[in-house]
Amino acid sequence: MSKIKPQTLKGFRDFLPEEMKIRNAVINACREVFESFGFDPLETPTLEYASTLLEKYGDEADRLVYTFKDKGDRNVGLIYDLTVPTAKVLAMYPGKIQLPFKRYQMQMVWRADKPQKGRYREFAQCDIDIFGVKSPLADAEILAVTYTLLTTLGFKNFTIKLNSRTILFNLLKKAGIADKKQQLSVLQTIDKLDKKSKQEVSAELGKKGLENSRIKKVFSLLGGPDVTGTGTTFGFDRICDALTELKIKEVDANKTRVLVTTWPGLESKSMELAANIRALGISCELFLEEKPYEKQLKYADKKGFPFVILLGPEEINNNKVVLRNMKTREQKELSQGELLQTLNPSI
Amino acid sequence: MSKIKPQTLKGFRDFLPEEMKIRNAVINACREVFESFGFDPLETPTLEYASTLLEKYGDEADRLVYTFKDKGDRNVGLIYDLTVPTAKVLAMYPGKIQLPFKRYQMQMVWRADKPQKGRYREFAQCDIDIFGVKSPLADAEILAVTYTLLTTLGFKNFTIKLNSRTILFNLLKKAGIADKKQQLSVLQTIDKLDKKSKQEVSAELGKKGLENSRIKKVFSLLGGPDVTGTGTTFGFDRICDALTELKIKEVDANKTRVLVTTWPGLESKSMELAANIRALGISCELFLEEKPYEKQLKYADKKGFPFVILLGPEEINNNKVVLRNMKTREQKELSQGELLQTLNPSI
Repeated sequence: MSKIKPQTLKGFRDFLPEEMKIRNAVINACREVFESFGFDPLETPTLEYASTLLEKYGDEADRLVYTFKDKGDRNVGLIYDLTVPTAKVLAMYPGKIQLPFKRYQMQMVWRADKPQKGRYREFAQCDIDIFGVKSPLADAEILAVTYTLLTTLGFKNFTIKLNSRTILFNLLKKAGIADKKQQLSVLQTIDKLDKKSKQEVSAELGKKGLENSRIKKVFSLLGGPDVTGTGTTFGFDRICDALTELKIKEVDANKTRVLVTTWPGLESKSMELAANIRALGISCELFLEEKPYEKQLKYADKKGFPFVILLGPEEINNNKVVLRNMKTREQKELSQGELLQTLNPSI
Repeated sequence: MSKIKPQTLKGFRDFLPEEMKIRNAVINACREVFESFGFDPLETPTLEYASTLLEKYGDEADRLVYTFKDKGDRNVGLIYDLTVPTAKVLAMYPGKIQLPFKRYQMQMVWRADKPQKGRYREFAQCDIDIFGVKSPLADAEILAVTYTLLTTLGFKNFTIKLNSRTILFNLLKKAGIADKKQQLSVLQTIDKLDKKSKQEVSAELGKKGLENSRIKKVFSLLGGPDVTGTGTTFGFDRICDALTELKIKEVDANKTRVLVTTWPGLESKSMELAANIRALGISCELFLEEKPYEKQLKYADKKGFPFVILLGPEEINNNKVVLRNMKTREQKELSQGELLQTLNPSI
């Protein structure tokens, strides 16, 4: 059997550790900020019935939904956004979800779009929404959360743009476009004005003038309550990219602060010491192979450990350990108790 | 257009806030423990080329992979586990990934299996693996991580079972089953012994005796380096279920500790106060609707807030706030400075 050349699908990404560390830092900041405002976490399936996903966003978007037949011959699809799944949840669990419902949801969504720079077929969305509150205070809170999150992440110069569908739809109505589906379709085209020229957008609008069928609102289509909602979607990937490009966030690239060396036959001593160090809340890696000290120190250098703890037969005989500062190359012989106190003076 | 009855696909789950809080607590514990041992995070796509996913696990498993043709007529599939995607990553980025490679990966995987109690079509896997280390110290470390994670989560009585494929394969070889694919298939059947009777398993083995084609090892098939690896998979869902059933982990069901009331026209004062409280690291929810104090207190009771801060025209005139203990119903009038100090005495 010939070997298969391993490759990742176009528009999809492997997140290697360096990138993942930034993503996890952003996830943590999001959770912390959202929960500090009283938003609750929600997660919904990757796959839904195609009937749940389609006819919610307009024809153009429908074409981008990854749909297929599953092994039970059901028409299913990968979720296209997080709004429709939440609408489903609101409709399905009226007894379990009490209004006002403030939820955040951070998940991958999929769009069978042309992949291009900064545009992926699989990407993370991060939504916060408040359902069941009519007061404009809810809108103000969404702005406050947005501001707090961006500030927490370290952004300094940013502009928050507001968008009211009610106002936009009323403007379209005054322009003689009263049909909801047509309105949606027209808005999708107008939305391209920051990427395409006025001529291109006008031409596209011309074509769309022909469509005439109707679309019902997402919520009423799903049979759920007609719930008032306000919210926002954070472009998770864009935030991560911006943090990386602007070098704003100093993500601790190497949380593991200490490497403990190993010596053949004495590994259990090193394991024990490492466990004691971790118990202090300090990340600690054990060198896992049979290699001379030299190689172990080289590894520590390459991986950027600030400290290495040497533990061999001599140290064990003397009931000591050697703490090496990798930057200054200074070495100190200490008892285990002294070592732990040096690593975490607060104990 | 008739309304569509909203429903979730069989074998798939909506995780509402209460459940999500437990899941997030487990995710956090996993990350903390894994990173304290020097494991790095990795994430790979949900979809891969079908050729990457198939013929890795044996015929029986192949049938459970969710495969379909995407809009570009590519044969793709939803990932079946996290081992094959990691093998792909090891093969694709030899320059970027240095051995030893210690990674953890927590993601959903999909299997078109018959849904039954505790068995889902979409479920989370949580893998830790050490690649490129031949020393049995790596195996010892996997055990140490497992022990530390379960202990951190609060489990007290547990047994860790070890499994060596090398030993199992050698046993099968001695039993006259030398073909790798057949070995895999036989092992899959034997694995059912804790759920099915000996007769049933024997019957299934009988049928399998006929299969005779060959399978190559996952790693060699993918064209990557023949990397030594050791690791484990945590049944994420099972851990969450066990924590819930055994009521081991007291997940803080209501992290939001304080509700600040609002008064028509004075909302900005409440927003400001709430922001100051959050700056102390205390979660704080704002009441978002125009309702009398009574209703606001009722809401706080229902949602289990221990404290409510009342802020109306009288308080603002006196430059005070009222802190209400919801349990004792005791109320105290305080200045904002006194309030913040009461909420967080360490400032």
